[in-house]
Amino acid sequence: MRFMVEMTVNLPPGDHSALLAREREYSQRLQRDGRWEHLWRVAGRYANVSIFNVGTPDELHELVSGLPLFPYMDIRVTALAAHPSAIATEEER
Amino acid sequence: MRFMVEMTVNLPPGDHSALLAREREYSQRLQRDGRWEHLWRVAGRYANVSIFNVGTPDELHELVSGLPLFPYMDIRVTALAAHPSAIATEEER
Amino acid sequence: MRFMVEMTVNLPPGDHSALLAREREYSQRLQRDGRWEHLWRVAGRYANVSIFNVGTPDELHELVSGLPLFPYMDIRVTALAAHPSAIATEEER
Amino acid sequence: MRFMVEMTVNLPPGDHSALLAREREYSQRLQRDGRWEHLWRVAGRYANVSIFNVGTPDELHELVSGLPLFPYMDIRVTALAAHPSAIATEEER
Amino acid sequence: MRFMVEMTVNLPPGDHSALLAREREYSQRLQRDGRWEHLWRVAGRYANVSIFNVGTPDELHELVSGLPLFPYMDIRVTALAAHPSAIATEEER
Amino acid sequence: MRFMVEMTVNLPPGDHSALLAREREYSQRLQRDGRWEHLWRVAGRYANVSIFNVGTPDELHELVSGLPLFPYMDIRVTALAAHPSAIATEEER
Amino acid sequence: MRFMVEMTVNLPPGDHSALLAREREYSQRLQRDGRWEHLWRVAGRYANVSIFNVGTPDELHELVSGLPLFPYMDIRVTALAAHPSAIATEEER
Amino acid sequence: MRFMVEMTVNLPPGDHSALLAREREYSQRLQRDGRWEHLWRVAGRYANVSIFNVGTPDELHELVSGLPLFPYMDIRVTALAAHPSAIATEEER
Amino acid sequence: MRFMVEMTVNLPPGDHSALLAREREYSQRLQRDGRWEHLWRVAGRYANVSIFNVGTPDELHELVSGLPLFPYMDIRVTALAAHPSAIATEEER
Amino acid sequence: MRFMVEMTVNLPPGDHSALLAREREYSQRLQRDGRWEHLWRVAGRYANVSIFNVGTPDELHELVSGLPLFPYMDIRVTALAAHPSAIATEEER
Repeated sequence: MRFMVEMTVNLPPGDHSALLAREREYSQRLQRDGRWEHLWRVAGRYANVSIFNVGTPDELHELVSGLPLFPYMDIRVTALAAHPSAIATEEER
Repeated sequence: MRFMVEMTVNLPPGDHSALLAREREYSQRLQRDGRWEHLWRVAGRYANVSIFNVGTPDELHELVSGLPLFPYMDIRVTALAAHPSAIATEEER
Repeated sequence: MRFMVEMTVNLPPGDHSALLAREREYSQRLQRDGRWEHLWRVAGRYANVSIFNVGTPDELHELVSGLPLFPYMDIRVTALAAHPSAIATEEER
Repeated sequence: MRFMVEMTVNLPPGDHSALLAREREYSQRLQRDGRWEHLWRVAGRYANVSIFNVGTPDELHELVSGLPLFPYMDIRVTALAAHPSAIATEEER
Repeated sequence: MRFMVEMTVNLPPGDHSALLAREREYSQRLQRDGRWEHLWRVAGRYANVSIFNVGTPDELHELVSGLPLFPYMDIRVTALAAHPSAIATEEER
Repeated sequence: MRFMVEMTVNLPPGDHSALLAREREYSQRLQRDGRWEHLWRVAGRYANVSIFNVGTPDELHELVSGLPLFPYMDIRVTALAAHPSAIATEEER
Repeated sequence: MRFMVEMTVNLPPGDHSALLAREREYSQRLQRDGRWEHLWRVAGRYANVSIFNVGTPDELHELVSGLPLFPYMDIRVTALAAHPSAIATEEER
Repeated sequence: MRFMVEMTVNLPPGDHSALLAREREYSQRLQRDGRWEHLWRVAGRYANVSIFNVGTPDELHELVSGLPLFPYMDIRVTALAAHPSAIATEEER
Repeated sequence: MRFMVEMTVNLPPGDHSALLAREREYSQRLQRDGRWEHLWRVAGRYANVSIFNVGTPDELHELVSGLPLFPYMDIRVTALAAHPSAIATEEER
Repeated sequence: MRFMVEMTVNLPPGDHSALLAREREYSQRLQRDGRWEHLWRVAGRYANVSIFNVGTPDELHELVSGLPLFPYMDIRVTALAAHPSAIATEEER
């Protein structure tokens, strides 16, 4: 099942390179195993729009709350369902 | 370039089957030609989350304002950029 | 999986007894089969707070969008996960 | 009488293990005596949705303001009433 | 127990004298029996701030939803508790 | 004339016992002289709903801005008028 | 005492010349007797910012609710006090 | 002096071709005489972002309130000043 | 031309007497030369409502951004125009 | 393609002259090469309204997120399209 997750990052100014490297590694591992299906930057803002494909809301929470940047984020979650007019590719179903 | 478009439908109660059939046909034509890349229902609401892949904001406006349901929709548009941590498949780039 | 669904009803003044009877029957059928787990009135407002227990967001959408009052409702959906401090009874898990 | 209490936690980054252990113990004691009837995590956010079952608003305030995390929380309270269409189990009444 | 109830009236223009007479009678009956403890007009707006003193949220909902103007009102309810610094008169407790 | 004043307190965590003792004394003095007519706690939140009975808005400002907790409060003021349906006791007029 | 009153007009399209003539006459009578002290148009919107100088909130409510356009207005009221740095002319005090 | 004016159009569904033709003619006349300096469509919405260059706020109000679509618009006005880092062309000053 | 400027002050607790003395002097100088035409305190809040009478938005920005408290203020600006029903005194025009 | 970018600056009080000099240089370089097409100050606020003319949302993000003040800004982006009634000069197309 899919969830749209919108994340806005509020990092205090400073050097966060180690934290950001961990965030990147964490994010790419989830993208590779297919659970973080899409990841886009919101143009002009320190924010992203993501689509997660997980088995349960519990799994979604485990993944999102495990983000190294989680303590610095405002997060909005929207549960998605199949749209009756969607022509999804087989992988999307 | 991609835009997230969130559409909320406010149809007055009544029979709108002809209008909805045209909406469906219009939407599926754009999905088939690849410009309406993703279409999800917001679970529990008469709303959707869509990703459009178009050449310009002008093209986005032409597509969205041509929706048969356009006069009945509240719409929020978010311009998307590539995320530096995204491992997009080739087709997504 | 559970979702909190907050519904606010905006019915135009008038006699809606047939519609409301269908709403009641629909709601009680879902309560009896265990998918509409809790239903509370918001004190002082024509609104309710509900907990649905369903298998997927698709199923949630099917149930909620089938409500006879659906065209007259503002709806907010919140996906719920298990809380690490919760001492849920067996039925709740 | 029941109240829905939505709590969002805003802890500054750091080690809060002692505080969180006290929060957990406090919460579980109230769950065991039946006054904190339901406790769900909001998927993807450091927040919960709770149902309290107490004798008076004064008792609700005493319980909520006694939370070890109370100084770090944004809280929204909604008074609940019986819904005329609810088929509550005997324990719920 | 006390609840603050803020009511904003949205009547369509027209002659509502019969409806308003029933509203007045209903309101004054509840004021006389002590359950609608305070009733103030919000200066400059078609709105009021009220304090209800009732036995349960169920009773509050019965009283408020029975208002002849209820279908035309936006309503905000706030559950009140005793304030530790309040020097309430005996009747207020 | 009466004003509803809603105060939300945002104290940083820490020991504020001296400040709070002054707040209590200040509040009770105004309650005793009749100008802070009602004081209720908002159940579940560090906030109150108050009714002030003063001679002018200038007097209201002097009283509220003199609160020891004033620098830590978010405040909303609503000017109240007599409601045409109110059956106020003599003291209320 | 002074109140800032912000009025936004929501008239349905149509000919309202008689209503608007009454509004104008009403407004100018109050301006001439000094109680509607200032009246400015909000540039680009069908709205105004007004300063009323009245004896009580009751009087403010009587004046504002008597406006011929009152049923078509959204209204925000702000109670004003003397500013300690203001160098008001004698008439303003 | 310049003002940013954001206009959102809320036309009821129907044939508005005569009205829209007048709107277009009105708009283009103001663009030609240099007072409606920029006019952009908000991509995906029935809305625009405009820059007006006028002599006074009174002139701005006269122009905007004279729009044939004015009764159907929500409007937000922002007064603009020269930015100290702007390298404006001569015509812009 | 006139602008309504609403200023809300967010000073951290502490001794700001020197800063406030400069603010007062700055404000009174502008009031004396007629450009800060009105200055009212918002009753019960650390905020004011002001009317500025200046030649251009650039001049408004210069005056407001020069306020010693400017870095601590939230500010809302509304451009004002003459109201067709206003009976302004000669000085107001 | 054009984007409206609204930036609000939230700098902590202090001396930021070096940072601001870099911001100015960065901004003027983008204005000179034509990509930061317009830059206006919001009168009375530490904020600006900007029009960017770029080739892609990716380029917009690169420019905006490279601003020296980016970590201190709240930013709102609006994608713009050609307006059917606009009489743009050749350079604007």
